[in-house]
Amino acid sequence: MPVAELVERARAGEARAVARLISLVEDRSPALREVSAALTPHTGSAHIVGITGSPGVGKSTSTSALVNALRAQGKRVGVLAVDPSSPFSGGALLGDRVRMQDHATDDGVYIRSMASRGHLGGLSASAPQALRVLDAAGCDVVLVETVGVGQSEVEIAGLADTTLVLLAPGMGDGIQAAKAGILEIGDLFVVNKADRDGAEATRRELRSVIAMTDRADGAWKPPIILTVATKGEGVDEVAEQIAAHRTHLGESGELRRRRLARLRREIEALALTEVQSRFAGLSGDARLDTLAEQVLSGETDPFAAADTLVEHV
Amino acid sequence: MPVAELVERARAGEARAVARLISLVEDRSPALREVSAALTPHTGSAHIVGITGSPGVGKSTSTSALVNALRAQGKRVGVLAVDPSSPFSGGALLGDRVRMQDHATDDGVYIRSMASRGHLGGLSASAPQALRVLDAAGCDVVLVETVGVGQSEVEIAGLADTTLVLLAPGMGDGIQAAKAGILEIGDLFVVNKADRDGAEATRRELRSVIAMTDRADGAWKPPIILTVATKGEGVDEVAEQIAAHRTHLGESGELRRRRLARLRREIEALALTEVQSRFAGLSGDARLDTLAEQVLSGETDPFAAADTLVEHV
Repeated sequence: MPVAELVERARAGEARAVARLISLVEDRSPALREVSAALTPHTGSAHIVGITGSPGVGKSTSTSALVNALRAQGKRVGVLAVDPSSPFSGGALLGDRVRMQDHATDDGVYIRSMASRGHLGGLSASAPQALRVLDAAGCDVVLVETVGVGQSEVEIAGLADTTLVLLAPGMGDGIQAAKAGILEIGDLFVVNKADRDGAEATRRELRSVIAMTDRADGAWKPPIILTVATKGEGVDEVAEQIAAHRTHLGESGELRRRRLARLRREIEALALTEVQSRFAGLSGDARLDTLAEQVLSGETDPFAAADTLVEHV
Repeated sequence: MPVAELVERARAGEARAVARLISLVEDRSPALREVSAALTPHTGSAHIVGITGSPGVGKSTSTSALVNALRAQGKRVGVLAVDPSSPFSGGALLGDRVRMQDHATDDGVYIRSMASRGHLGGLSASAPQALRVLDAAGCDVVLVETVGVGQSEVEIAGLADTTLVLLAPGMGDGIQAAKAGILEIGDLFVVNKADRDGAEATRRELRSVIAMTDRADGAWKPPIILTVATKGEGVDEVAEQIAAHRTHLGESGELRRRRLARLRREIEALALTEVQSRFAGLSGDARLDTLAEQVLSGETDPFAAADTLVEHV
């Protein structure tokens, strides 16, 4: 099927066309550029929400509960579950994401899992394209969630308009969060499993740490919400605060700034990937292999060798 | 002092010249290229040993004990302690590295801590240059150790001829190791704190997991050594196995392969950094800011914008 037709069908809400387009962008198929060009004019209306948190805080359950809350408001929802440790992608639900099956028959929800291990350029190359598909397909909100362990919290935040940081009581998360720098990236903090001991203490700890971070006058003050995602408690408030943050982003001009910063990073990364592949295609004395041999033998040094590469591109 | 003279003094074993050269390469000073060119012909004889492991396994103590063992053999030793989470570098010893002070008055040992946070290109850009200084200064062995938490295990392995993976009993490290992919990168495994319960169990678990990894015929079989670094127990055996691995690398041709692969990555990274800085210097319609605006407004798409960048470099 021609790309233009796929895009039309995806925009009309056909789930198979959406899935096919994501596969095309993820596989970096020859059609990738055509797909990107066809999609870009139809993007910009989806609110991209990144969901991060340590393993065990209930990310998958919280994401699912949030989908319910957003669907109850009549919103179309996309879910992109990114697994940086897995080489397997696809439309199939991951084994441990049973709760997501609740939404499998809801045609207002697109769920997609995406691997990044072993893919050229990793998460940062494929995810923006997949988000573009879900955006063009008419999703009002797209939730991006990391599956499994990973240091990709900050990377996820770089993809999103709004970043939600999930914690759970008694995991020493306050200190961990400060270390990982997620306090700076969080627009909303959710203390899940709030029926457990220590939820209030976690909230207090978070509040005092957040109070210490520098924020400009009139800046967004990240709310801290207690939830019990398994029972749906507090999840409507999370949905409300996500909407409130979207409004703030729009009114303050921050949405435009964040999206421009994201696009700069994406364009630069694509350009560097292109340059890298041109390096790989050089021949003769400009071959990377030859240059490495010359440095190893002491004939040249790494900087001079790098200059040779750059000159030949 | 001219670079050539600094290099001469460093090669003659003058500690201050070594420290000065590392500062020059780390600060990416204008003299960086000159330093690199002057050093490269004098490098290649040091055996670079990466030491990785989770926090709490006794990395700092093990490194210090290993320095003792290598010094007892009359070897000159360099230590590069890399802290990916810190913006502070320098010759000063880190607060928690008290044991390293044992070596402060030994002029056969160079110890240097290096930050990578906030430095252009991070660890991968500065560390190879610092290693080159220690190599040219006549170190027989250079130990590269990560300080603090980080996902930089694999990055450290990419800098080293030999990678030593440290574990401790009862930390569930077996499973963690498998996840982080450090089983593939380890040439030696050391179970430290072996006077604790569970050391033998950790060794058995490791042995069975290592047995499952694919290794070619005649390939190196990673030994597993039990140590109590605080008492120096087992550390001589670690030093012996490091030397045995160096011999294996040389005889099998693997040393050359690893060093060439490392140089290819380094040259490529330097070239990409150069290209990136040229992107930043573009003006008019090829400015990254302008291109991002055009994608945001739907005038163009990210791939076409990236092409524009590449064409203008």
